[in-house]
Amino acid sequence: MLTRTIKHRRKITGDTKDELVRFVALGGLEEVGRNMMFFEYKDEIIVIDMGLQFPEEDTPGIDYIIPNVNCLESKKQNIKAVILTHAHYDHIGAIPYLIEKLGNPPIYTTALTKEIIVKRQGEFVNAPKLNVEIVKNRDKVKLSRYFEAEFFGVSHTIPDTTGVILRTPVGNMVHFAEMKFDYDRSGKPQGLDEFERIGKMGIHTLFLDSTNAEEPGYSISERVVEKNLEDLIKKAEGRIIIGIFASLLTRMAEIIKIAEKYDRKIALSGLSMKTNVQIAQNLGYIKIKKGVIISLEEIHKYPDEKILVLSTGAQGEPNASLVRIANGENRHIAIKPGDAVIFSSSVIPGNERAVQTLKDNLARQGAKVHHSKLVDLHSSGHAPQEELKVIMKLVKPKFLLPIHGHYFMRALNAELAQEVGIDKKNIFLIDNGQVVEIYKDRVKMTEHTVPAYYVMVDGLGVGDVGEVVIRDRRVLAQEGMVVVIATLDRHSGRFLKNPDIISRGFIYLRENKELVEEVRKKIKGLISRIPRHQTVEPDYVKSLMRDQVGRFLYNKTKRRPMILPVIIEV
Amino acid sequence: MLTRTIKHRRKITGDTKDELVRFVALGGLEEVGRNMMFFEYKDEIIVIDMGLQFPEEDTPGIDYIIPNVNCLESKKQNIKAVILTHAHYDHIGAIPYLIEKLGNPPIYTTALTKEIIVKRQGEFVNAPKLNVEIVKNRDKVKLSRYFEAEFFGVSHTIPDTTGVILRTPVGNMVHFAEMKFDYDRSGKPQGLDEFERIGKMGIHTLFLDSTNAEEPGYSISERVVEKNLEDLIKKAEGRIIIGIFASLLTRMAEIIKIAEKYDRKIALSGLSMKTNVQIAQNLGYIKIKKGVIISLEEIHKYPDEKILVLSTGAQGEPNASLVRIANGENRHIAIKPGDAVIFSSSVIPGNERAVQTLKDNLARQGAKVHHSKLVDLHSSGHAPQEELKVIMKLVKPKFLLPIHGHYFMRALNAELAQEVGIDKKNIFLIDNGQVVEIYKDRVKMTEHTVPAYYVMVDGLGVGDVGEVVIRDRRVLAQEGMVVVIATLDRHSGRFLKNPDIISRGFIYLRENKELVEEVRKKIKGLISRIPRHQTVEPDYVKSLMRDQVGRFLYNKTKRRPMILPVIIEV
Repeated sequence: MLTRTIKHRRKITGDTKDELVRFVALGGLEEVGRNMMFFEYKDEIIVIDMGLQFPEEDTPGIDYIIPNVNCLESKKQNIKAVILTHAHYDHIGAIPYLIEKLGNPPIYTTALTKEIIVKRQGEFVNAPKLNVEIVKNRDKVKLSRYFEAEFFGVSHTIPDTTGVILRTPVGNMVHFAEMKFDYDRSGKPQGLDEFERIGKMGIHTLFLDSTNAEEPGYSISERVVEKNLEDLIKKAEGRIIIGIFASLLTRMAEIIKIAEKYDRKIALSGLSMKTNVQIAQNLGYIKIKKGVIISLEEIHKYPDEKILVLSTGAQGEPNASLVRIANGENRHIAIKPGDAVIFSSSVIPGNERAVQTLKDNLARQGAKVHHSKLVDLHSSGHAPQEELKVIMKLVKPKFLLPIHGHYFMRALNAELAQEVGIDKKNIFLIDNGQVVEIYKDRVKMTEHTVPAYYVMVDGLGVGDVGEVVIRDRRVLAQEGMVVVIATLDRHSGRFLKNPDIISRGFIYLRENKELVEEVRKKIKGLISRIPRHQTVEPDYVKSLMRDQVGRFLYNKTKRRPMILPVIIEV
Repeated sequence: MLTRTIKHRRKITGDTKDELVRFVALGGLEEVGRNMMFFEYKDEIIVIDMGLQFPEEDTPGIDYIIPNVNCLESKKQNIKAVILTHAHYDHIGAIPYLIEKLGNPPIYTTALTKEIIVKRQGEFVNAPKLNVEIVKNRDKVKLSRYFEAEFFGVSHTIPDTTGVILRTPVGNMVHFAEMKFDYDRSGKPQGLDEFERIGKMGIHTLFLDSTNAEEPGYSISERVVEKNLEDLIKKAEGRIIIGIFASLLTRMAEIIKIAEKYDRKIALSGLSMKTNVQIAQNLGYIKIKKGVIISLEEIHKYPDEKILVLSTGAQGEPNASLVRIANGENRHIAIKPGDAVIFSSSVIPGNERAVQTLKDNLARQGAKVHHSKLVDLHSSGHAPQEELKVIMKLVKPKFLLPIHGHYFMRALNAELAQEVGIDKKNIFLIDNGQVVEIYKDRVKMTEHTVPAYYVMVDGLGVGDVGEVVIRDRRVLAQEGMVVVIATLDRHSGRFLKNPDIISRGFIYLRENKELVEEVRKKIKGLISRIPRHQTVEPDYVKSLMRDQVGRFLYNKTKRRPMILPVIIEV
């Protein structure tokens, strides 16, 4: 599909003589999450990341949203490589759902990311074994005939995050999905010389994270976060429970060091917490002295002031460890007065109320709750404005493609770029699915698109929950529904019994018998007005029932439940 | 109910000789919103505020949540006064739903609040005319035989906000629902002498807002906000659209002055915006030069740089003015490149995604979006930590009852109180509905409660959407539902036709015919196994159908739609 439209276009525009690499983002441009992009040159495709997106308010009941790979499936033999930048789910989470559809191509990534994706792949029945090639900082890999990758380490909230310089026939592309500056104890940013080195290579296009383009200034240094955490840990007289993402392994390594310093035993709560710490430990990213890690079962053996629990669930996710602890659903640990609960995380938009409820639960049981409004107990993994500007100044790309995040965030990133001297006409705000043509001397946003709509994962189903189902769920959630069943004699068209009315989520019918009776009367009247000699046309009668019952209930209640008319003819 | 249990208790505890005032919060303690509290002495009741709460994620489809006034209805003749602190909906919004149930008692409030509640009351058909007595700063009003009120102005984001010193038989209670410090241009807080004066009266209990007890430091001065807004307005070369709550009248008065200074015409967009500005103008709280206000229809008559639009909808509320403008649904104004859209509001938890979508929409159409992450374009109306501490130090209450906000916020407020020397045992974290006994020399949290659950307003219904309906809506939203209809011969128990299956919000049935067939088979098998001589017991068979179909679908899909079995016997 894609190839065909493009060919057609090339004829018209006369671009045939020009070499061009096509770039498409299948996700990650109009949301935070679902990151997946690819470059295409002739019959070669290089994919970067394969992430999932967590469900939105307007996709109720959905487990995940994954990228739509329709346009790649038909030419999966062309996929020469999948590069994974780091092991966060918004960059790797869709692999088990998609990798087979794409012909299980070779994956290039760092050691930690490999361990995490291989472990997760094993949790999916029938998912194929992954072909992963481990890469290291400064590795150069010939991915295919036309593409070569050079990897470079960047600082993020998980170790082993890598950026990539993709050498293509039209120039060097730089893509490091997400990063922030790493500051030393004196507050000096680390690793800027690496960006300087890259800038000297001559960079065609920089693909730049926009998640924090709205945030002024510089990142809060992890050193500051660590110092604040240490202050709290030092001061605490009872148990300490830290709620943190299981993926923030860099910070967890530091917390573990602090716990050792203050002679606290560490218990891990939450499956992903245990798995990730184990993997990071195996690879040497986290070092823990012998005997420091204990199981939750054992914490009662130690005095309270010797306990530190690292727990998942800081977003108030139902069933996550911290929520279960707060709800008294954990067999080994319950909150008690004197506990200090530290949230080392920011709240993801949409989770505010769940987090409030969680904090309420903890406070009611006597815990002292620390959250980052008071002191910096968390720092984002994404570069804010001033860091973005420094990166652009050092990398000196000719063209800029702001990626990751909503349009307004990318638009802000584009403004920052202009402040550091990137020409406005060289900055491109594209949409998911939009085909971008990258030539040696220019970049062109085309009007061609590939399918990039949501693919929803719900239970065992992938893609079988579509727009219609989601729309219905939204209606059902707002006003509920009423099923109206008319049982008719197929010959006479007469009612064989009183219409049945069932309703859920509308109003409580048992307390509204009068209303139910009126609906019954309405339906009987409506069907009896159909002349006897005329056969009942079910679809027509159903739409009559839907309209009239709907209007009647709206007049009575000012609500619009979903009306489901059923005609049973026997 | 309340009186009886209390009497009983007094006998037991021997408190009969002690004078006591009872205090109950019917809302506002476990949430932000739904503020309503009352004091009771003998046969006299004084109510403070009557607010509503906006719906939560777990109450889908609901319009509002209002306080439960069951415990007051039976003794409405005792209600001597309703005091309203200010005209925000979380303090006045429930009046049209509740005032008649409470016997339409006299309301004491300031001029602006009166205008706003009277105007709103008129929008409710059959709502009774309100009895409102206007009070002013320093007014003393004898409310009843035992209660006297002295009013004092406090600074908030709406003019005419009042605090009240309630003189009761056991002592002076101070209640100013919400306030923040007002700073002059030099940054000096204003009006602290008033709190000092109150402190000298001898205060028994202070009822203190906890909404911002999590925020460190002092408020951002409105003067700073105004300066930043002025800077943006001065710089803007095109039209300016400011998204702001219609109730932030204090700030709007300033924005209007700035617009006049820079010679911009002002158009108001949004019904509540027009109403509120009109009322504030009538009362002299907003002064506008003649000819400055124009209608939206007229904006095309002026150059872009002469236009400033004040619009509701900064929270991304569907159907609110700014959202309609962004969606191209306003006949008179559409976004175009060069427009500056300024959000002078913070995002209420739960609205983040709606606001992001709104900002995206605006940015895509070329507007430059300004939000307060970059510069302070908004300041909350609630005192943060240091201001709370100053207030407590000046008012010097013996007892403290932190009100407004979640438990963890109130717990933080309690800690602040201890920092300024209030004894821990004199601070009370109570629950909605919990009866508090206030004696001359002590305060006692009792175990008695009055009903204080949610009363939900949905469409025309008040209170008819209960827990069951809401729970059903939640289930329907998550997984949808399946109606399974078995039509049986009442004599033989045999199927008269193939079972009918209808589903919404589950999976798209037309694409899953096989699954539907299997469900049919399941149902037939299940009913045919019931011995012929046995009459079909509908409830039993229905529960069989529910269980087995539910389990079958879960195994096939890992989803749990609501199963609604129907048996039709003819």
